[in-house]
Amino acid sequence: MGTIYGLGLGPGDPDLMTVKADRLLRNARHVAFFRKAGRKGQARQIVDGLIPQGAVEFAMEYPVTTEIPVSDPRYNEILSSFYTEVCDHLRGLAQAGEDVVVLCEGDPFFYGSFMHLYTRLADDVQVEVVPAITGMSGAWTATGAPVTWGDDVLTVLMGTLPEDTLTRHIRATDALVVMKIGRNIEKVESALRAAGRYDDAWLVQYATMPKQQVCRLSERDGVTPYFSIIIVHGQGRRP
Amino acid sequence: MGTIYGLGLGPGDPDLMTVKADRLLRNARHVAFFRKAGRKGQARQIVDGLIPQGAVEFAMEYPVTTEIPVSDPRYNEILSSFYTEVCDHLRGLAQAGEDVVVLCEGDPFFYGSFMHLYTRLADDVQVEVVPAITGMSGAWTATGAPVTWGDDVLTVLMGTLPEDTLTRHIRATDALVVMKIGRNIEKVESALRAAGRYDDAWLVQYATMPKQQVCRLSERDGVTPYFSIIIVHGQGRRP
Ligand SMILES: C[S@@+](CC[C@H](N)C(=O)[O-])C[C@H]1O[C@@H](n2cnc3c(N)ncnc32)[C@H](O)[C@@H]1O
Ligand SMILES: C[S@@+](CC[C@H](N)C(=O)[O-])C[C@H]1O[C@@H](n2cnc3c(N)ncnc32)[C@H](O)[C@@H]1O
Repeated sequence: MGTIYGLGLGPGDPDLMTVKADRLLRNARHVAFFRKAGRKGQARQIVDGLIPQGAVEFAMEYPVTTEIPVSDPRYNEILSSFYTEVCDHLRGLAQAGEDVVVLCEGDPFFYGSFMHLYTRLADDVQVEVVPAITGMSGAWTATGAPVTWGDDVLTVLMGTLPEDTLTRHIRATDALVVMKIGRNIEKVESALRAAGRYDDAWLVQYATMPKQQVCRLSERDGVTPYFSIIIVHGQGRRP
Repeated sequence: MGTIYGLGLGPGDPDLMTVKADRLLRNARHVAFFRKAGRKGQARQIVDGLIPQGAVEFAMEYPVTTEIPVSDPRYNEILSSFYTEVCDHLRGLAQAGEDVVVLCEGDPFFYGSFMHLYTRLADDVQVEVVPAITGMSGAWTATGAPVTWGDDVLTVLMGTLPEDTLTRHIRATDALVVMKIGRNIEKVESALRAAGRYDDAWLVQYATMPKQQVCRLSERDGVTPYFSIIIVHGQGRRP
């Protein structure tokens, strides 16, 4: 029986992959990754040049992304049967004795898509998760200032939450990370304003990647891509 | 002028260091690290066998740890002059053209001691921070279950906070990480009970290290070491 690896790649710079992920990848015979139809796939792009010649690639293309709202029951059904289908393929490979590396942006167990495969596979075949640097670590490092000091409370929020939920949590925290921003940017900005933290917020786009950009949120211009993170630094005790 | 590297080592398993940290370490001429007087030092221990022969080691020994309460004004004074002193040494090395690698457990900008050196050095010499896997990523991976799904809110708390603050934040979150537990364990347990999350909590000791232990918090026995993390997994949307 083969092993399926949920291989965390970190925030984007291949130099920030772990020694373990680097080794597993360079010896891989099967490499699977998620992508939007018609795109190259962010995770696949991170490892360009690292996949050995002759490795078999398996692109798992999302049947929907933003065409159907998450609240529509069909969204869950369609995604669920997509996961079942790709898992059948991966399970088959493992049962035939092949190891498969599944590429994951950031850390696989932190808001990752791999988790949906993990829960469907872990009872049947050997699955190993290789942790990695999260996108948010890449982002706060890029701001050039520590995110949390002393006893600071850190809250991580998704931009997809309702505005009042965002505001309430932002009011209650010292340090803040907001992910999944994209089209939610205006809602997140208004929650930050309502909580009095807008002027302290930083926007990091494509952390640790070649097109990384860091600016104060109040100085952003243009649309915010999917790979964006907002950081508000804590100000706790510092001797 | 040399560069001072805040070198994140990750949670403990040297295989989980980044390719970059591994390379910087294997070529290091000066290696600095914090430790408690009389101890080997956790960060130093992680890299045992990786430091090149002939590298000069600089052990930065904390003048106090738990002997003086954090609330005592002398605590801040003593620590502050200790940081000033070690920074003078590091600055001197960099100004003499030497690169120095400062070993950091986990990610340097996430509740790390290196931050106190960073703020004192960054104006005078070149300082580069190398992000790394946090202890909490190592810990939730060790539990074998994803920590956050969908829109889950994640809150990170320090066990050193007052009990009512802990309770309030635990009540308001989906997923939870508690760090700096040690002697605060009973307080943290009572806050978890008050918030109705005690039965869902996991305790991870020495995540990714040879003596790693994972159990339900309710099944712990004995004292909890400094290198302990409590995890409560989120239960968000999962197609
Ligand atoms: C589905 S989550 C995946 C998180 C990932 N597992 C991690 O550990 O960071 C996708 C979100 O992660 C954030 N993200 C991950 N990597 C990033 C990077 N390098 N730069 C900016 N944002 C990033 C963005 O907010 C994006 O919307
Ligand atoms: C001063 S903080 C340093 C955090 C570190 N910079 C990080 O990124 O994880 C020390 C706390 O980190 C946690 N910690 C760090 N690594 C750990 C590990 N491998 N296992 C368990 N706890 C860990 C413990 O809760 C400990 O009290």
